[in-house]
Amino acid sequence: MSFTYKLTVAYDGASYHGFQRQPKNITVQEKLEGVLSKIFKQRTTIVASGRTDSGVHAIGQVISFVVPHLIPDRNLQRAANALLPEDIRVLEAALVASDFHARRNAVAKYYSYKIKIVEEFSPFSCRYAWQLSNHIDIKELKAATAYIVGEHDFSSFRSTGSTPTRPVRTIYLADWQFIGEDLIFHIIGNGFLYHMVRNLVSALMKVACGKFTKERFRDILNSCSREHPGGIAPAQGLYLNKVFYCHSERESFLQNYMKKLQ
Amino acid sequence: MSFTYKLTVAYDGASYHGFQRQPKNITVQEKLEGVLSKIFKQRTTIVASGRTDSGVHAIGQVISFVVPHLIPDRNLQRAANALLPEDIRVLEAALVASDFHARRNAVAKYYSYKIKIVEEFSPFSCRYAWQLSNHIDIKELKAATAYIVGEHDFSSFRSTGSTPTRPVRTIYLADWQFIGEDLIFHIIGNGFLYHMVRNLVSALMKVACGKFTKERFRDILNSCSREHPGGIAPAQGLYLNKVFYCHSERESFLQNYMKKLQ
Repeated sequence: MSFTYKLTVAYDGASYHGFQRQPKNITVQEKLEGVLSKIFKQRTTIVASGRTDSGVHAIGQVISFVVPHLIPDRNLQRAANALLPEDIRVLEAALVASDFHARRNAVAKYYSYKIKIVEEFSPFSCRYAWQLSNHIDIKELKAATAYIVGEHDFSSFRSTGSTPTRPVRTIYLADWQFIGEDLIFHIIGNGFLYHMVRNLVSALMKVACGKFTKERFRDILNSCSREHPGGIAPAQGLYLNKVFYCHSERESFLQNYMKKLQ
Repeated sequence: MSFTYKLTVAYDGASYHGFQRQPKNITVQEKLEGVLSKIFKQRTTIVASGRTDSGVHAIGQVISFVVPHLIPDRNLQRAANALLPEDIRVLEAALVASDFHARRNAVAKYYSYKIKIVEEFSPFSCRYAWQLSNHIDIKELKAATAYIVGEHDFSSFRSTGSTPTRPVRTIYLADWQFIGEDLIFHIIGNGFLYHMVRNLVSALMKVACGKFTKERFRDILNSCSREHPGGIAPAQGLYLNKVFYCHSERESFLQNYMKKLQ
């Protein structure tokens, strides 16, 4: 017999060299696999919805794995949280269909990116937000952001060093909220190229700060080329919020999001 | 010629082995002295209002140092912040009287201690608060806390390993605020024994959670002995908020605090 589990996991990425296991550095995957191997008393390998880079956080990362025996969901969650470091938490554990695969079955992902617009930078925000003291033109920012919604070739915003995959992605939602000093980017897409969110945020902030016009941003998007000075936003502002495994869940999430805006 | 500077400094203590310089571990003092030595082009030694332990944070630590030449306050602040790691920030720099000494001249200190009462612990709070899921009896907690206000021998709440100093201290304010899931302890005193705030918080939380009666807490205070199971609260919840250098400043701060409560 074998059983497949789906775990929803949150982590503070500040102390980890990203999600994916590495030979020398401490990663989230290594911590999770170590704890699950202990609980199930055998070497357990996990699959995540996708990697997160060094310093990137997760509010709702999803992992899956196959094990030879059953542990009740709630007990598994408790046992894992008792053994895991405090900056990695299992939010939910669920026994799922044997063919569930956290990466292959993902139909959409929701990321947010946190920017703080402040006069003086706070030492307590440096690992959790990108701190800027620029004046922000929210109208221009929102107008530029509208260009990325829909199906596009995002080659302009992929990392230069990334492995070539088909660069077309569909963005269902791309929106900014300005609450107090927090400027938050929300983006939901059917998938993201390597560094795509951070590259988009960097170029969009150039629009917000008056360094790019929104038309220049649009031209960069349409050029399908990395040959532009758009830059990359720092890792610490990025949060993987949610992974969707069915289209209806994504749809109802989007509808709720839109309702709140009205 | 020599000039004395007073710097108000904030830091996230999560990545440091406390304030005070150590031969092997990275400390806040080492970072500050390194940067100031660079700016003043000579080995600069600083004095702080007091040490903070590994993992303890500061919102308003104060340091002083003597240097042979003058740099305008605002330039000194900017130069230091440009060179310091992002989790240490100089909030203010001021040229002061040549005999100013950050530790000896301090007349009072204001600490706060942050507790989060939550069902599930957040990975993002583990370095910035003590997370508990207990039921809190705020009435008993406040009643027990009232015992510590005024002049007392705090031997019961000093660390067992601390060097013997006179154990009598005056507490001007000791108060709890419960806002949402945050339970915050505010304490202002003319000085604190080693680990005193964390030992007080631990014993007071035993009252709040129904493990000690408030009378037992009072008896522990009056026993002037560490022979009790009061424990110590974890470092990550403690914040050094403010250091007072004159009595009138402390008085007006206290009056404002009381006004806000009404």
